[in-house]
Amino acid sequence: MKQRILIVNSGGDCPGMNAVIRAVVKRAALESNWEIIGSIDGFDGILSSPYELKFLDEKSVSGIIVKGGTFLMTNNKRNPFNYPVKQSDNSIKYTDVTDQLIKNLKDLNISSIIHIGGNESHKISYQLSKKGVNIVGVPKTINNDLSITDYSFGFQSAVQIATEAVDKLVTTANSHNRVLILEVMGRNTGWIALHAAIAGGADVCLIPEIPFTIEKIIEKLESRYSIDGRGFANIVVAEGARFKGENLALSPGLIAREITARLKEKNFNHDIRETILGHLQRGGVPMAFDRILATELGVKAFETILEKKFGTMTIHKNGELTNIPLEKVIDKNNKIETTHNLIQTAKGIGISFGD
Amino acid sequence: MKQRILIVNSGGDCPGMNAVIRAVVKRAALESNWEIIGSIDGFDGILSSPYELKFLDEKSVSGIIVKGGTFLMTNNKRNPFNYPVKQSDNSIKYTDVTDQLIKNLKDLNISSIIHIGGNESHKISYQLSKKGVNIVGVPKTINNDLSITDYSFGFQSAVQIATEAVDKLVTTANSHNRVLILEVMGRNTGWIALHAAIAGGADVCLIPEIPFTIEKIIEKLESRYSIDGRGFANIVVAEGARFKGENLALSPGLIAREITARLKEKNFNHDIRETILGHLQRGGVPMAFDRILATELGVKAFETILEKKFGTMTIHKNGELTNIPLEKVIDKNNKIETTHNLIQTAKGIGISFGD
Amino acid sequence: MKQRILIVNSGGDCPGMNAVIRAVVKRAALESNWEIIGSIDGFDGILSSPYELKFLDEKSVSGIIVKGGTFLMTNNKRNPFNYPVKQSDNSIKYTDVTDQLIKNLKDLNISSIIHIGGNESHKISYQLSKKGVNIVGVPKTINNDLSITDYSFGFQSAVQIATEAVDKLVTTANSHNRVLILEVMGRNTGWIALHAAIAGGADVCLIPEIPFTIEKIIEKLESRYSIDGRGFANIVVAEGARFKGENLALSPGLIAREITARLKEKNFNHDIRETILGHLQRGGVPMAFDRILATELGVKAFETILEKKFGTMTIHKNGELTNIPLEKVIDKNNKIETTHNLIQTAKGIGISFGD
Amino acid sequence: MKQRILIVNSGGDCPGMNAVIRAVVKRAALESNWEIIGSIDGFDGILSSPYELKFLDEKSVSGIIVKGGTFLMTNNKRNPFNYPVKQSDNSIKYTDVTDQLIKNLKDLNISSIIHIGGNESHKISYQLSKKGVNIVGVPKTINNDLSITDYSFGFQSAVQIATEAVDKLVTTANSHNRVLILEVMGRNTGWIALHAAIAGGADVCLIPEIPFTIEKIIEKLESRYSIDGRGFANIVVAEGARFKGENLALSPGLIAREITARLKEKNFNHDIRETILGHLQRGGVPMAFDRILATELGVKAFETILEKKFGTMTIHKNGELTNIPLEKVIDKNNKIETTHNLIQTAKGIGISFGD
Repeated sequence: MKQRILIVNSGGDCPGMNAVIRAVVKRAALESNWEIIGSIDGFDGILSSPYELKFLDEKSVSGIIVKGGTFLMTNNKRNPFNYPVKQSDNSIKYTDVTDQLIKNLKDLNISSIIHIGGNESHKISYQLSKKGVNIVGVPKTINNDLSITDYSFGFQSAVQIATEAVDKLVTTANSHNRVLILEVMGRNTGWIALHAAIAGGADVCLIPEIPFTIEKIIEKLESRYSIDGRGFANIVVAEGARFKGENLALSPGLIAREITARLKEKNFNHDIRETILGHLQRGGVPMAFDRILATELGVKAFETILEKKFGTMTIHKNGELTNIPLEKVIDKNNKIETTHNLIQTAKGIGISFGD
Repeated sequence: MKQRILIVNSGGDCPGMNAVIRAVVKRAALESNWEIIGSIDGFDGILSSPYELKFLDEKSVSGIIVKGGTFLMTNNKRNPFNYPVKQSDNSIKYTDVTDQLIKNLKDLNISSIIHIGGNESHKISYQLSKKGVNIVGVPKTINNDLSITDYSFGFQSAVQIATEAVDKLVTTANSHNRVLILEVMGRNTGWIALHAAIAGGADVCLIPEIPFTIEKIIEKLESRYSIDGRGFANIVVAEGARFKGENLALSPGLIAREITARLKEKNFNHDIRETILGHLQRGGVPMAFDRILATELGVKAFETILEKKFGTMTIHKNGELTNIPLEKVIDKNNKIETTHNLIQTAKGIGISFGD
Repeated sequence: MKQRILIVNSGGDCPGMNAVIRAVVKRAALESNWEIIGSIDGFDGILSSPYELKFLDEKSVSGIIVKGGTFLMTNNKRNPFNYPVKQSDNSIKYTDVTDQLIKNLKDLNISSIIHIGGNESHKISYQLSKKGVNIVGVPKTINNDLSITDYSFGFQSAVQIATEAVDKLVTTANSHNRVLILEVMGRNTGWIALHAAIAGGADVCLIPEIPFTIEKIIEKLESRYSIDGRGFANIVVAEGARFKGENLALSPGLIAREITARLKEKNFNHDIRETILGHLQRGGVPMAFDRILATELGVKAFETILEKKFGTMTIHKNGELTNIPLEKVIDKNNKIETTHNLIQTAKGIGISFGD
Repeated sequence: MKQRILIVNSGGDCPGMNAVIRAVVKRAALESNWEIIGSIDGFDGILSSPYELKFLDEKSVSGIIVKGGTFLMTNNKRNPFNYPVKQSDNSIKYTDVTDQLIKNLKDLNISSIIHIGGNESHKISYQLSKKGVNIVGVPKTINNDLSITDYSFGFQSAVQIATEAVDKLVTTANSHNRVLILEVMGRNTGWIALHAAIAGGADVCLIPEIPFTIEKIIEKLESRYSIDGRGFANIVVAEGARFKGENLALSPGLIAREITARLKEKNFNHDIRETILGHLQRGGVPMAFDRILATELGVKAFETILEKKFGTMTIHKNGELTNIPLEKVIDKNNKIETTHNLIQTAKGIGISFGD
């Protein structure tokens, strides 16, 4: 009988997820003895009754490398250790269903799992691994906030989309002497904002790692207008950026507005427009960079299973594809050090961090 | 002495404005006796002291055809018939400065104006024309709300950007079974929304011309989820769309939010995300379609001046480049008739208008 | 029993074909009594044994609007009136198989055909129509060489791709003071070349409708270098362009080379590079413009069958969707008149046609 | 008096060159005592009489980060150690003009040079350095063939363009059951081809590092058609690829044709189309990745001059920005090892190298 691997997608969708799945399937096709099964919508596919699974052959992954998102779907809410189970009275009770999960894997003769996910997902992987599940993790985040791998696929696609947005805003800002504020993703980190600010030639970059003041922003903006009252300015702000000395934590989509409001409070008298990029950053055709990285990780994940190196994550480190134990992955968040090359580069071309 | 033409940009910026300017300059270069001068920032350039003008030769327009916005800048606030003049006490008084404008034109030996603008701008053109200024209008709007011309440059670029946004949102919506609401521009019309909805394959399209109800939207969305509880849906909403039977007029950027709020009020229990496209629709590299249209109009505008057909606007009508008198242009807003081909096409592929 | 429509794709592939198919299927889904069947690979699907057909429901057309080409495949070689039939000795004999085709349609209870194709394909439609087949044509060509419709889908996508190629070549030409020659498609017409030359800001545009001489090209190029020995130049040449006074008819891909060779023969001493754009012009994600046009035509084609207006083609004429009899379509090739707006516009901005 | 730095661009143009220049200028603007001068067209600007130089301030580099190529122009032919000097009889004599170069630098009070170039250029840098010129190199190549730096800007932009070309060809190949051959750049290496083949999902990848046979290609292609006679295939071939056991070295643009000819010779009976991507790979808007990398290197190059670390090149190695002596750079060509990750990844998803 063939050996079966289950692929599970967790967390927010990310350009390149399909390329990982495709790579696993194509790599497995070179061996004679393996079957790949996709779980629909995270762990739901293997936990629901009836199962929602998809047997994957080369035909089923044909053409998906150019598609964003994941054709197996994903969710970032349902953790099998704390799973929403509908009770007889229709209420929801959060329950550990991992015993059921392990039973279902056995029932289907699935001997291992490849789990594509972010920080939270790999905590689940680690816990499942401790319960004896043969699991291999693949890192995924558009936010670049996994410290353990040099690159995570999806990030460059998000940076490119954010940069193209800055490019577009520059032409319109320039035509009207405006200040344009672009809010980008990144959760608690400023990686996307920092990259897009340098690549797009922004004037101000606001990131969670460097708290800012409205006064310093005004100082920078006024210097742009000082010569003849003309000029324009671009601010790129990470959704997690915060004001210096305040505990204000705003939801995604609100920080750009707050900055505008405070600029007006301080009688900053130039036109301001905000753009919140939102889910546009997750979508669309993945960049070549991310497709290649995702393909490398997918091939490596399958080979990690061949070598029975379970309980690990496949990563890209110092130019090499390798594995690290899952316990080394968890609870590490990849914040930007203020001594990082790119902070120095940004300051070197005159970008203000509002600090 | 050479004859001088002043180019003035008015209203919001629009992909293709630079192509018009370039075409005027290159067409003029084929004649021996003409000079083209650009007024910086709408009529400000010719009204300010000292003047802010730019003499334009072929070198100064080299490479600008690929650029969005306008390198001469524009503004949509300062009408010479009601112009903000700073008083000695620093207050602003709105004044008719058109006599000064005419004097300045004479002072600079400028014999005619090419005025690139939208609805509001061409009212100014018409009034200036009645005061004896030799003026030729060029229609400009990303909103397609000028009824008198078949196409206005900038519109196809805006539609393409909006459609690519829908494409991106589809992959992420699909991965999470979400409803995604995209708010696009269009002022009081639904042209951009209607085109993007058809091209992007949206499920619901909400436009000012067809008031909608939240119940009809829910009906459509639920039908997408009815089979197995899975599915995703895209709503494209024009910034000027409005609820049936209500007088609610929301500012740009708020209608998508309002729809989300009302869907939740009605206990619609699927994930919803909003994206407000905003100024991204104005920016970036103009599409080939708009560059060609803008080039045609620029050449035609210069030739209209050669033929001394002042007080007219150059338009594209039934496949021909032609002119119409400015008095026929004003106060005509190009709304979508509910009998329009595209409404029928949209309904034909199952798009709901929420009516 | 449901009524069945067969969709057949013929000729070269073209961005927007999938959108037509999708529109027919989605429009049919609004009626209760219709089934749509796709013939795989032109008429082969209905002529082969076993049949190669695909029953199409809304699910099967989900997501295809963004895809170039046609998921039903197409061919531009196998005409049922002169069809390559393999003989018992494995040789090929060209035979009229239309009686068999009609028999097969009856066998499958197919009552009508929607035929998406170009000039050659619609001759077949007309002949089938005369033999009693209920057929409706949909015009398709990236070359814009169907005179009977104002626009054919695919053309704007091809123009946009060609224009982006010019944009790319401009930056590299500029960096090296080079002459760059870009060969584009168009068969016997210069539509793509003319549009890309205007939109891309080319210096020289060579099209079949205006034979050119190498001397006139050199004259134009030298004027670009005359001031300081620096400069660069872009030539856009249609694959069907031809030298004045010669009968030389070159295959696609050879005219750019021939021009380079002749420039060198005449001791034109600047660096020259050629790019042949080839099949890149057919591929990729269709532009919004083409998706909308294709959707309009697909909906109209289905409704034409509802109204039993067989033997016609759906077209876009003077802003309206309508039908014309197939006999009026055939043998009309849409050449560019030298009095066309766009020729005048191109000359107006100084583009040389080498004449 | 201010200290002056000369920026020189050499070799083929490359997306990101403008970003390097911009970064140097903006970084210098933060210091009080520096002036940046651009040499037009490689070393020509400083060697010609009169000089062709451009004093660069922040305004002169505004907006150039989005532009491909280099606004200072470049050439890959004129080496100051072997420079084409026009003689009194108009003949050209190749002469060492470096003494003149050094004299001119002194004449203009230029104390150091930043030299942006590829392999050949840095040999010149090294030789100039040995003659006492204060020079700092910045690596530039779209081909990724500089072994000493992990990344060179321009490469990811070239890979992305090549990948998008594969994406376009896939849709048209698929619609016609064709074989499509795409020839990409890379000189003597296969980096661009290998990346584009993985990212685009090609079937065959031919690179200089792995000589191939036509028989092995046919074997792979036939396996794609073996099931039902349908299918399509994509071949990505590097311009420097070569046949096993042959000394045939073809010029760029000819290898794709040669493969087609040999496939036909062997009676391979499927439709084949070739595309030669050529200079399209150099042009256009640089990717965010390359803009950031180029900006980092530009800032670093200026700071290297501040620190007087002359005779070095700024590089990106193991995630750090650093410098290495120029003598370690030269004569190192970055070929792909057959044990490289990416070769294994490519084989892992079934890509054939024709070996």
